[in-house]
This record gives sequence, C-alpha cells and structure tokens, in this order.
Amino acid sequence: MNLSWYRYDLALKHVFRISRSARTTIPIVLLEIEHDGIIGYGEASPNVRYGETQETVEAFFAKVDLERYESPFLIDDILQYTDALDTHNTAAKCAVDIALHDWVGKKLGVPLYRLWGLNPDNTPLCSFTIGIDTADVVRQKVIEAEAYPILKIKVGLDNDEEIIRTIRSVTDKVIRVDANEGWKDKHLALERIKFLQDNNVEFIEQPMPAAQFDDIKWLRDRVSMPIIADESVVRLSDLPMLAQAYDGINIKLQKCTGVREAMRMISTARALGMKVMLGCMIESAVGVAAAAHLSPLIDYADLDGNVLISNDPFDGVRNINGMLRLDLQPGLGVHKKIL
Amino acid sequence: MNLSWYRYDLALKHVFRISRSARTTIPIVLLEIEHDGIIGYGEASPNVRYGETQETVEAFFAKVDLERYESPFLIDDILQYTDALDTHNTAAKCAVDIALHDWVGKKLGVPLYRLWGLNPDNTPLCSFTIGIDTADVVRQKVIEAEAYPILKIKVGLDNDEEIIRTIRSVTDKVIRVDANEGWKDKHLALERIKFLQDNNVEFIEQPMPAAQFDDIKWLRDRVSMPIIADESVVRLSDLPMLAQAYDGINIKLQKCTGVREAMRMISTARALGMKVMLGCMIESAVGVAAAAHLSPLIDYADLDGNVLISNDPFDGVRNINGMLRLDLQPGLGVHKKIL
Repeated sequence: MNLSWYRYDLALKHVFRISRSARTTIPIVLLEIEHDGIIGYGEASPNVRYGETQETVEAFFAKVDLERYESPFLIDDILQYTDALDTHNTAAKCAVDIALHDWVGKKLGVPLYRLWGLNPDNTPLCSFTIGIDTADVVRQKVIEAEAYPILKIKVGLDNDEEIIRTIRSVTDKVIRVDANEGWKDKHLALERIKFLQDNNVEFIEQPMPAAQFDDIKWLRDRVSMPIIADESVVRLSDLPMLAQAYDGINIKLQKCTGVREAMRMISTARALGMKVMLGCMIESAVGVAAAAHLSPLIDYADLDGNVLISNDPFDGVRNINGMLRLDLQPGLGVHKKIL
Repeated sequence: MNLSWYRYDLALKHVFRISRSARTTIPIVLLEIEHDGIIGYGEASPNVRYGETQETVEAFFAKVDLERYESPFLIDDILQYTDALDTHNTAAKCAVDIALHDWVGKKLGVPLYRLWGLNPDNTPLCSFTIGIDTADVVRQKVIEAEAYPILKIKVGLDNDEEIIRTIRSVTDKVIRVDANEGWKDKHLALERIKFLQDNNVEFIEQPMPAAQFDDIKWLRDRVSMPIIADESVVRLSDLPMLAQAYDGINIKLQKCTGVREAMRMISTARALGMKVMLGCMIESAVGVAAAAHLSPLIDYADLDGNVLISNDPFDGVRNINGMLRLDLQPGLGVHKKIL
C-alpha cells in the first residue's frame, strides 16, 4: 500500500462567519492510498479548535506505515493502528479511514452504501447553512437558498432574534438553529430557545459551551425543542455521558476519525434513544461523499460542506436542492476534476 | 428473491443438561434466500424460553414477502421490515439476516469477515462447554476435552463446588462458569463467586435470574470477577440499563435478530465500557459461521454449538481445538453436506 498526499485550499463562495471566526479559504490535505492498481481517496479538513492544521496532518501521514498490512481489506486492524499512533489527529485518521473504504468499494465494484446494506433512496434531506450576518444579508441569502427546503441558521451573537424574525418574514420552511456555544448564560439560552420554539424551529444545536454540561441539562428540562450536541461530541466514548444532557448528537467524520467510528456512534446513539445528525466541516466532495453514503442511517443531514466552495477538486456526490444523490459508481463515487 | 425453508433436527453427541433442562435433539429450521442464481443460507434455532418453536419460525417465514425489494443488498430496509412484521421471533429474523449476509458475500465474492473489514487471524479462542453432571462424568468430559484450552462449565445445582474442585484436580486451564440464573439468593451467589475467584475462574455468566437486577448490582459491588449478562441480554436497547449491573454481555445472534444488530450491540457495549462475548445456541455450521465471522470484534468466544452435534448438515467453519478457522470462501463459507 502506498500513501501519498497533497495540500489544497478550498475557496469559499462567501465569507463564512460563525460565532467564533470568519474565513475565506479552508486549507485541507487530500490523501491517496494505492494498492493493487486501485486508488482510494481520503480527505483531512483539519480544525484548529481540535489542534489540527495542514502541518500536523502531513506529519501524521508521514508516520503511517501500511507496509505491515497485506491489503486495505484489513480496515479494522489498520484503523486501530492509526488510532494508536498518536492521540487526537482525528482529521488525519479520518482521511485514512475514508481512503480505505473508497479502496474496498472500488475493489469490490460497489458503492459504499451498498457495501453497508443501505438504500440510497433513504438519504435524508440536507439543510443549507446560512452564516452569521446582518439581517439584510441573511434575508438575501434566504432568498438565494429558495430551492433548499431546510435551512440551518447560525446564531450566537446579539442579533439572534432579529435574524430569526427576518427569516420567518420571508419563509415558513423548516429551520434548524446552531448556536455554536454562543450563549454563555443559561437563563439567556432558555429565553432564546423559547423564542425559537415560538418561531417553529426544529431543533437547536449546541446552545451553550460544551464545558457547561450541567447548564445544558438544566436547559433540557425546561424546553421541548430537541437539543443536539455538536462541539460536545467528538468520539464514541462521549456518548453515554452526553445522553444525560442532550437529545441527539451531530457526528462529524473529521472529528470522530471516520466512517467506521461514525457507524459505531450511530448504533450507540440509537441504543441510548438519541437522534443522529451527520454534519461536516467545509470539505471537498471526498469527505462529503463519505458522509452521504452513511446518511441513510441518520435523522438529520447537514452535508453542504462542498456546496459552499467554488473550487471543489472532486465531483461525484450531488446535492440537488438538499437532495443527496448517490449513483452506482463504486466506492465513494468521486472523481478528480481537471482544474 | 425466493425464500424456502425446511426443518431439521440436530442430534446431540451427549445428553445436554443446563440448570433448566436436559435434551438429546434440537429442532431447527434452515432457510434459503435465492436471487440472481445465488443462494444465501440462514438458520433459526428457536428457543422455547423466548417463545419460539419450529412452528412459529415457519409461520414467520410464510409472512415474509421480499418481492417488494429489488435485491438482498438492501439489508437495512429488509431487516427493518422483518423486525416490524411481528414482535419477538428473533430466531426467525436472525435466519433472514444471516441468509442476506451470506448472499451479499457470495455476490461480491468475499467472506463476510472481509466484507466487514475484519482480520480472520483475530478470532478469539473458543471455549468448550461442559454441561451439568455428576463429578465423575464431568471429570471424564474434562479429560476428553484436553485439546481445548478454555472450558466453559455449567453450574447452578447443589454440586457446584464439587464440580469445580474436580475440574481443578485435573487441569489448571482457563475456566469460565455459566450459572444460567441458577442461584436465587444473593448471599449464596456471593459465596459461590468468591469460591470461583479462589479457584481462578475467569468470569461468571448470569449468576442469578435476569429479573433480580438489583441483586446482581449488589453482587457486582462485592466481587472482583467480571459478571457477564446472558439471559438478561436480548437486544440493543437492553444495553444502557445492563451497564449498571454487569461488566459484559453475551450476545447470541438467535436472540438479537442476527449479525447486523449484533454489530450494533458490540459498538454500544464498547461505548459503555463493557466486555463482549459471542455465544450461540446449539446450531449448525450456518449459525456458528455467522458468529465466527464477527468474532474478531469480541473478547470471548463461546461458539461450539456445532461441535456438540453429530449430524451437522453443513460444513465450513472449523473449530480446531478451540481455534476458529475461516477460509477465503465467499459469504459464510459453508456448504451443504450430502448426509
């Protein structure tokens, strides 16, 4: 097995603001695992919040020695090995996981959803994300997103209520709200969530900082709207604890080390009676496709990571007005574009 | 997709006694799902404890209409459908699950362990089960089982301590003990487990009745030996509760509806910090092979169901002195014998 990789900067169509930061490009690292004449594609979209950069991803790949394994079919052994190589580095580990799965699907000649026994007609409708902005810009973005039946709205600054009122003045479509830990006071959070309930919002993601676990428990006892963990959830072992304070989890492949662990998290969330959302970072079609193949297993999809960029180096998975379309191409079903 | 099935009686090499009953034959139902010229094999080994017999299994199969599904690749949809057809009937549902997986493996030309990314060299050593009997007979059986490195001893009657002493007088190999709910008093159970600890037993399965949940919690706080749930565990949704009283679970495909749910249970048990054992009923090579392909994911294997019978209608998975051997044959890798 040969590993090779290269850096790439994803260019955002719009400046992207959430409560923590604003960005115009997203640096990623694309991975290729070659064996037996077949190339599996993987992607790491590192997040500084979790201590990863292009540099750390490349340093991690440089340590990975797959010579000891006979073939990419030994996914379980290989991923235990990469996971043990170093702590954290989840985006780098995720790239290896995705590339191995792509390779296996290509080798067996089946798309990943088929390898996993899933029906591609069961992908849930995907939300379209609208970042934090002035009410006027948000109104404009909502109008531009007319074709998408579900909106995900980023809040967490002072103008939350104005934003929601503005959106509700132009549309009654399904709205999901993500506060990205923006509210620090539980009474303020309670007031805001009650306002969201009155405005027919479907659920709220991460209303308060992950560290304020007891406040979120407190909040949950006082609202009817489902509270979904996002920043609070990283990997499988987090789930039993989270079930005490949240109604669901937002799984991101780049945070949880990839599709194999994501499947385990989905199973565990079901056992704990939790809803499952599948989200993504800003990613190319490689990362988004991996999540899309898994999505028949989940409740809510937030997989527009590659819709927001203007220079996706891959095509394959199609997001047609929120409908994720997977065809019969083997593996991830993505192809390198000539840029 | 065509379903067909037939009854079969597995003949036991020895009369088999556990704390509840004694038997010489085990009635099963073998299933075949044919599609596209490929036949997937499945098996239901019904257990009256869970309300199933050959009759109920056949009645369930007669209700299953797979015409609505394009192919056995749609495992997730099909199993949701069979699960919703009726409550319980887990052995019948398991037969469908196993047959679909066998079909997919054969269609793609890979053994199931490879489809699942597992390494067949990682199957754990299998225990050899010795039923309840007089000390003399048990001594004889232990000597006959010399080639097996791990013994599983059934206890739960009055001669427990005599049995263990007898075994320890002839061997110091690894012993696991299964009480099959045989001890009804927590103080007696505590005394017996302390005796087992002193005799270097690895773990105890289901020391007390499943209904005595609080007694088992009480017991767990007072012993160092892992307590494994067996009769207490049926399906995925049982796990979060069981984690409060048990250190591990014994998953049986026939009780949990098959390999797909078993995989979910393994993931969830890991998240809950529990050990995982994979057991079986008395089953042919079909059911045992399905579990064997999964076994690289687990800690303890108790998959001698087909070693104990004299007329296995299938061959394939080999149990060589406790070592489960899986070869490169596609699907389950089992073949019908000419009997």
